[in-house]
Formats: sequence, C-alpha cells, structure tokens
Amino acid sequence: MDKTDIVRTAHAVADAAREAVLPFFRSAGLTADNKLPEGRFDPVTEGDRATERAMREVLRRLRPQDGILGEEYGAVSGTSGLTWVLDPIDGTRAFMSGAPTWGVLIAVSDETGPIYGIIDQPYIGERFEGGWGTARMTGPMGARDLRVLGARALSDAIVFTTFPELGSPAEAAGFAEVAACAKLTRYGLDCYAYSLVAAGHVDLVIEAGLAAYDIQAPIAVIEAAGGIVTDWQGGPAHQGGRAIAAAGRAQHEAALEILSKVV
Amino acid sequence: MDKTDIVRTAHAVADAAREAVLPFFRSAGLTADNKLPEGRFDPVTEGDRATERAMREVLRRLRPQDGILGEEYGAVSGTSGLTWVLDPIDGTRAFMSGAPTWGVLIAVSDETGPIYGIIDQPYIGERFEGGWGTARMTGPMGARDLRVLGARALSDAIVFTTFPELGSPAEAAGFAEVAACAKLTRYGLDCYAYSLVAAGHVDLVIEAGLAAYDIQAPIAVIEAAGGIVTDWQGGPAHQGGRAIAAAGRAQHEAALEILSKVV
Repeated sequence: MDKTDIVRTAHAVADAAREAVLPFFRSAGLTADNKLPEGRFDPVTEGDRATERAMREVLRRLRPQDGILGEEYGAVSGTSGLTWVLDPIDGTRAFMSGAPTWGVLIAVSDETGPIYGIIDQPYIGERFEGGWGTARMTGPMGARDLRVLGARALSDAIVFTTFPELGSPAEAAGFAEVAACAKLTRYGLDCYAYSLVAAGHVDLVIEAGLAAYDIQAPIAVIEAAGGIVTDWQGGPAHQGGRAIAAAGRAQHEAALEILSKVV
Repeated sequence: MDKTDIVRTAHAVADAAREAVLPFFRSAGLTADNKLPEGRFDPVTEGDRATERAMREVLRRLRPQDGILGEEYGAVSGTSGLTWVLDPIDGTRAFMSGAPTWGVLIAVSDETGPIYGIIDQPYIGERFEGGWGTARMTGPMGARDLRVLGARALSDAIVFTTFPELGSPAEAAGFAEVAACAKLTRYGLDCYAYSLVAAGHVDLVIEAGLAAYDIQAPIAVIEAAGGIVTDWQGGPAHQGGRAIAAAGRAQHEAALEILSKVV
C-alpha cells in the first residue's frame, strides 16, 4: 500500500471539496430537499451533491482501483481492497444555518475499518488528518500535531453531542446520565466536535444513529491522535450506529459503563 | 458625535482584543477560575482578563472621555455620555472547549441603548459590525453587507439558543414551546448565533440570564441589519436578562406570543 499516494489523493479530494462547497455556503436560495419521510428533517442541498461529485471525480482520476462509499451517490466497488468513504457535508443543519461547524469527511478503509481520514472545515480553512499513528492539523494558526487530552475523570470531562435528543428516548437518557456526571456538556458541533477530541480540547463525543460515512474519518483521526472510538458496547464503531469518542481510557470506561446498559 | 472616530476606535479595540486573546485559545494549561458559588460552572480564563485589559488600554488612549462597562473589570464613568460595553470572551465554555463559536463583543451606548457594535471571531477572522442603519461583515470569504432574512412563519424558522436549559425551568419550557413550532432548532453557538441572524441565515435567537455586555453588541448589529431585538415582553433588552433576536416581525411576534407568558 502506497501511503504517500493515499495521503496525497485524500488532500486532493479535500481540496476539490473545498472549492466545490464554498460557493454554496451562506449563499442565498439554498434548496433543501427532504430525503426522509415526513417529520424527520434531513436537508440535502445542491451543495452536498455537487461536492460529492467533485470528490468522486478526483478519485476516478487518481485512484480508479479503489472502491467508493458516499452519502449522496452510494457505493462503487473497487479491486484494491481499499474504499474511500465520503461525506461531502457532515452537519447539513449547521451548513443551512450558516454555522461553520460542518465538515467534509474523507476516510480510506480496508476490511478492518478506516486506516486514514480527513476532517476538513473549508470556511475556517482547517484540516484535521490522521492515520498510521500520526495526526496533525493545519488552520488559521498554522500547523501542529494532534494529541488527545489523555485520561481524566468523567467529573472533569467536557462532553459533546449534536442534539440533546440523540436518537431514541433511551439513547437520550443514557447521554443525559453521562452528561450529569461531566464537568461541562455542549451541543451542536457535528463532526467538528470529533476534531476537538483529536486536538486535545474535548473529552467525549457521544452520538447515535450515525452512518458509516459520519464516523469513519473521525475514527481515523482520533485513533491516530491517541484516542479511542467504539460503539456503546465497546466494539467497533465504523459501521455507524452509536459511537463514543474518548480522549482517554478513563473517560471511555466511565461513559461505557453507563451507555452499555442502554437498550 | 464623531461616528468615524467611534468606528475607528471600535476596530482598534477589536484588533487589540484579537491579538491579546488568540495566544490563549486552544493553549495548553488554560486556567479556569470559578466566579460563582459551587455547582454553577462559569470559567473565567486568564485570556478573558488579559483581553479586557488590552481593550481598555486602547480606549484609555483614544477615547478617555467615554465610560467603560466590562465583564471583568466593572464600570468606569466618562464625561461624554457614551459608554463602551465590553465582553472580551463571550462564550467562555466554547472557548475552553476549543470551539470557534465564542466572540469578542464591543458596543457603544448612549442613554437610549447601544448605537454601534462589533461581534468579532478572532480565530476565524470574522468581524460583524453595525450601527446607524448600516451593517457589514468581513471574513474568510471577503466583505459584504449584512441583511436579516426578513419575515417568515415560525414553522419555517431556524431557532438557536446556547443551552437547552436556558435559565429557569419555566424559561426552558417557554423556549421548548417555540422550538416545537420551528423548522429547526440548534444549540451551542453563543454570540455567534446573533451574527447569523444579522447575516440572514437564522430566524431567532432566544436566551435568558444575559448580562448587558452579552447583548448590547448583538442588538446594534442585528438592528442595523434590519432585525429586531427585545426582551420577552417586547421591551428593550439592552440591560440584559431575557432576549429575543428576530430576523423579521412575523418570527418575533410568534415567539413573543409564547414567551411573554413565561413567569
């Protein structure tokens, strides 16, 4: 496996996504479809689709041997054993609200799960990447290596999730129990919260109802920065569903003790 | 009143704040005090204090005749009838979490309330300003004028607040009733949400328990962009407490109808 080529391709995909998505951000007249049956709000913008097309075009050119799994245009098989897992706009609700907390997610996976990933925030100009034990970021204050906070007690922890409702009432209650033990609970950052775990600012991100493309890039970046990502039973999270991302073993175990009981 | 001098001074204050605050953002070993008695978490960082000192130093030099009211160092009277109302870091919880949704708030007030304001996000490099009927922003995508969304039904509205708990249980219940009628509810942006009202992306921001320095700059920017900011009874909000910021009369009236009943 040519790691250098994978990393170079991933950055080219992220660059193409930035260029494609930014004209849509905060543009007037953004059209939002509703993919799900009535009641559940899941806006998909033209920006989402145009961005994934731009990302796929780069992969078609540079890595035609690899498979692709994307939010908007589904799965394409490859012959290399590697799959690119793409979410052109993670956090479409943030995107529609003009908030700069959405991101472009790019992961490269083999049969064991994600091995390299990028979380990119095009508006701020921040890029978090990780794989093979190395994680770094570039942004308005320059470049630096990423390292999680490390172990600390849940009572000292900063905990994030996107919505207080999470998913089911039982999932929301489980999260609320963790939050009640933590020092500080915040909402609303979408994938950006995972970047903050990798960068050493946040202890835990807890979510439910995820798709594979929501979590694979965060897994790669956080694990490469020394953190832990599992499902609520302590098993692999890369297929989506429920996830705990933790800056250290102590926070992970404390959250798991509560969340593993959620039916 | 020399508007040009006020605006120039305000930008100098915002520039000084950027320079003072950024070395503290995402720095290791940030010390957080606890201003309030046990149980309530209100971190005040060294960054908060150092930034307000830098802002006051600019005012002492350029506008010694004006009063100052700041979060960290209290009130200083002036002789001009104008007061600078400063919050060096609005959103200290976001700041401590590494999230780029905190802001520096600067307002200039006379006896009627704020007449000019700046909401600055130093990390992203975004500055929203408004007064005397003109509002504009500069940021990663350049400069543009700000204009609120205008009137639309609450059922089409995007609503923000910082915490689902807001303040008292009755205040939280009132917010939840507004949120249940809206299209989309989001949490966690602190003062950044007010910028998004002014910039035409968000319909309503609803908060309680505010100080004067939390709301005066948002009032100036949003009103100059064509929006409305009042308390939950429809009266002036610049003394703090409960606030509704609205992108149009329809959203404002719909929120007010629910929130004015909150005891």
